[in-house]
Amino acid sequence: MSMNRRTFSHQLATALGALAVSPRASRLYAAASRSDVPRINGDRLNLHLRELAEFGKNPQGGVSRVGYTDADKQGREYAMRCMREAGLDVRIDMAGNIIGRVAGSDPRLKPILFGSHIDSVPEGGNYDGTLGSLSAIESIQTMRERKIVTKHPLEVVIWQFEEGGLIGSRGAIGELAEKDLSLVNWSGKTIKDGIAFIGGNPERLNEAKRSQGDFAAYLELHIEQGGTLEQRSLDVGIVQGIVGVYRWEVTIEGFANHAGTTAMKDRHDALLSAARFIDMVNRTVTAVPGRQVGTVGKIQISPNTPNVIPGKATLSLELRDLDSAKVTSIFETIRREAEGIANANGTTIRIEPISANAPAMTDSRVRRAVGETAQALGLKSVELPSGAGHDAQSMSKLAPMGMIFVPSVGGISHSPKEYTAPQDCVRGGDMLLNTILRLDQMDWSRPAST
Amino acid sequence: MSMNRRTFSHQLATALGALAVSPRASRLYAAASRSDVPRINGDRLNLHLRELAEFGKNPQGGVSRVGYTDADKQGREYAMRCMREAGLDVRIDMAGNIIGRVAGSDPRLKPILFGSHIDSVPEGGNYDGTLGSLSAIESIQTMRERKIVTKHPLEVVIWQFEEGGLIGSRGAIGELAEKDLSLVNWSGKTIKDGIAFIGGNPERLNEAKRSQGDFAAYLELHIEQGGTLEQRSLDVGIVQGIVGVYRWEVTIEGFANHAGTTAMKDRHDALLSAARFIDMVNRTVTAVPGRQVGTVGKIQISPNTPNVIPGKATLSLELRDLDSAKVTSIFETIRREAEGIANANGTTIRIEPISANAPAMTDSRVRRAVGETAQALGLKSVELPSGAGHDAQSMSKLAPMGMIFVPSVGGISHSPKEYTAPQDCVRGGDMLLNTILRLDQMDWSRPAST
Repeated sequence: MSMNRRTFSHQLATALGALAVSPRASRLYAAASRSDVPRINGDRLNLHLRELAEFGKNPQGGVSRVGYTDADKQGREYAMRCMREAGLDVRIDMAGNIIGRVAGSDPRLKPILFGSHIDSVPEGGNYDGTLGSLSAIESIQTMRERKIVTKHPLEVVIWQFEEGGLIGSRGAIGELAEKDLSLVNWSGKTIKDGIAFIGGNPERLNEAKRSQGDFAAYLELHIEQGGTLEQRSLDVGIVQGIVGVYRWEVTIEGFANHAGTTAMKDRHDALLSAARFIDMVNRTVTAVPGRQVGTVGKIQISPNTPNVIPGKATLSLELRDLDSAKVTSIFETIRREAEGIANANGTTIRIEPISANAPAMTDSRVRRAVGETAQALGLKSVELPSGAGHDAQSMSKLAPMGMIFVPSVGGISHSPKEYTAPQDCVRGGDMLLNTILRLDQMDWSRPAST
Repeated sequence: MSMNRRTFSHQLATALGALAVSPRASRLYAAASRSDVPRINGDRLNLHLRELAEFGKNPQGGVSRVGYTDADKQGREYAMRCMREAGLDVRIDMAGNIIGRVAGSDPRLKPILFGSHIDSVPEGGNYDGTLGSLSAIESIQTMRERKIVTKHPLEVVIWQFEEGGLIGSRGAIGELAEKDLSLVNWSGKTIKDGIAFIGGNPERLNEAKRSQGDFAAYLELHIEQGGTLEQRSLDVGIVQGIVGVYRWEVTIEGFANHAGTTAMKDRHDALLSAARFIDMVNRTVTAVPGRQVGTVGKIQISPNTPNVIPGKATLSLELRDLDSAKVTSIFETIRREAEGIANANGTTIRIEPISANAPAMTDSRVRRAVGETAQALGLKSVELPSGAGHDAQSMSKLAPMGMIFVPSVGGISHSPKEYTAPQDCVRGGDMLLNTILRLDQMDWSRPAST
């Protein structure tokens, strides 16, 4: 099909005169007239967003398009139709990920991979994952219509069951263990059965595994999910990296006793210690400058009845930051303070690590390409971390990785209230298309850097 | 049967010479030699406690003799056998309470009622209720063996399902509503079906209703359940009254959002507000001197998952004190402080009353009789409130009421670890017997006083 197209590299070379394509050349490209920069079909992107939103649509707004449900399967079929219409050669890998490919002009080059996911949390929104997925397809369709052929092959990916813990992308890097496969999820299916349900083959997962060097680069467009861009009236976030996520389980033991007969001074109230712990976590996390976050999102107490002093409390503790040393330092303060809280009313506090996912930094060259693309499009950008996990963090293990954020109204996500304005969706699509074209001009044979 | 006995009143009149029986005479009686004071059969009381403990016995210690279960029914049958052996004329009233009666020498006098309950909480102990019930039976048996006949008729009562919310005694004062009858309890039965199961008749509950003036006085022996007596090495608690119990439901609304992407300053964390509320309740309750207690025993949050900022929290708040004005004052402080906590992170805190049970004061004459009996027995006593509810509070609406406490080791109750030493059980039995004999000498035709 590339026979019918004017190659984009040729067009760009013309625009830049005789200059070789290099980071410096990219900057010159950015300085070229904005009207020269290709744009996606924004109406079509927003139409596709609305059409996909029909699958798993909730009466209160948003969707429940949970991985491995019928709604998920129907959404995937819709996405595959769009991909084929855009000219992509579509397949489902053994892990259940949807991959669409279009050839480049230079057969020696590794593909640039980009995409996101279309599954949602239960009662989720219409932008998380879907914007990046449909913009990836739209970018391909725009290139096809404009007869732009890249040097690199392009692969669009729709990762399966991202909300279940990056299941599809972990499959692609060979990190889905046997025990993961047997977990039963929101859909009521095991991961294993879910993979088969959507057209993968859990017995042949190893065939889905990709290796370091398989891709030139990985790029993902996503809604910010936080409120930074909106609050600062910015258009684009250049993601510095995906924060490390560290989780602990906190167990507080006191002594359950009669709430009427036990004097205040005689109590070993596990919930009182839990309360002081939760407040202390908040004070400790906010005591130092920076974007780190700390959350107690879960609490379970026993016996949990109004007239018995709680004897036991179990809490979750989660800390996130791009800098793992900062997390360690904050955690040490929390642990020290917890001892004082426990001693104050004769309870014990035990803190046990549950999981530790290290930060995944984006590649500095991809970040620069995103920033220059924003400049070329006349969009205001800022570098910021991703507080949420994304399939991009799996891909950072295989290839130079980058992410583009667009504003989330009110910083709300995983909710029917999740919203990104249509013009911001279009800007995101334009950013994705043009960053891919920029990445295509770069030399990815050099080692990755951060 | 009274034909065969020496009347106790005759014996006492002899001891006191020609003095009329009056509070002053009671004090003189107390001054009489301790060896003249009748004692229960302590070995038999402790044997009965051990035998009753077999019904619903748990491997970890203690019992689950929950109202309306087979264990409860078997325990009741055992208690009724003991009552008949003690010479009581036993019946089950329409509310399911077990009542045993023995006549007095003066047919014009109203009965003195005493007893407790033998049902337990799930995984409860062997003293709460059972000590007072079996000591009441033991007191009758001792009197029978010693041929002591009181002037007043005596009624021993074993209230049914005390732990379910004073069900039997509320039936006896006509305060069991239709909606109470349909509640399903630990046993899996409704109260209505439970009453029929244990031999009552829920269709004829009105026949169980007793009226003000039906009894000369009501007396209940119970374990303290708190740690005051043990900590101060005292033998006997003279109960000042049963504290008022006031409950509220506290609803905190924030905004559930992504724990990774939502900056600390942008959060409306309902659990953080809940934590500060719980700590504030503790500070407020302990800021003023006194025995008042305040407890948050229940918490439920939503969505309750480690990676989502809690959007909603529901807590119980319970305040107890003998002085309802003090409770009101503490609650007003809590409500005022809650506003500041809510405002600090943009949450709302709504506090709604659930129930308010006014304090039930003991009768001053009964208290004096208990104190003088302790003195006569050479036991160290103190006046203290009951922090727990008891059937005695129902009875306070019908008759002058009093309670006797004996020590609970470690202040523990509603637990397999609940323990009262055998000698303290015996002291409790002696206190009950001799206080009844003392009450029998008093004129109960005058109005009740506190």
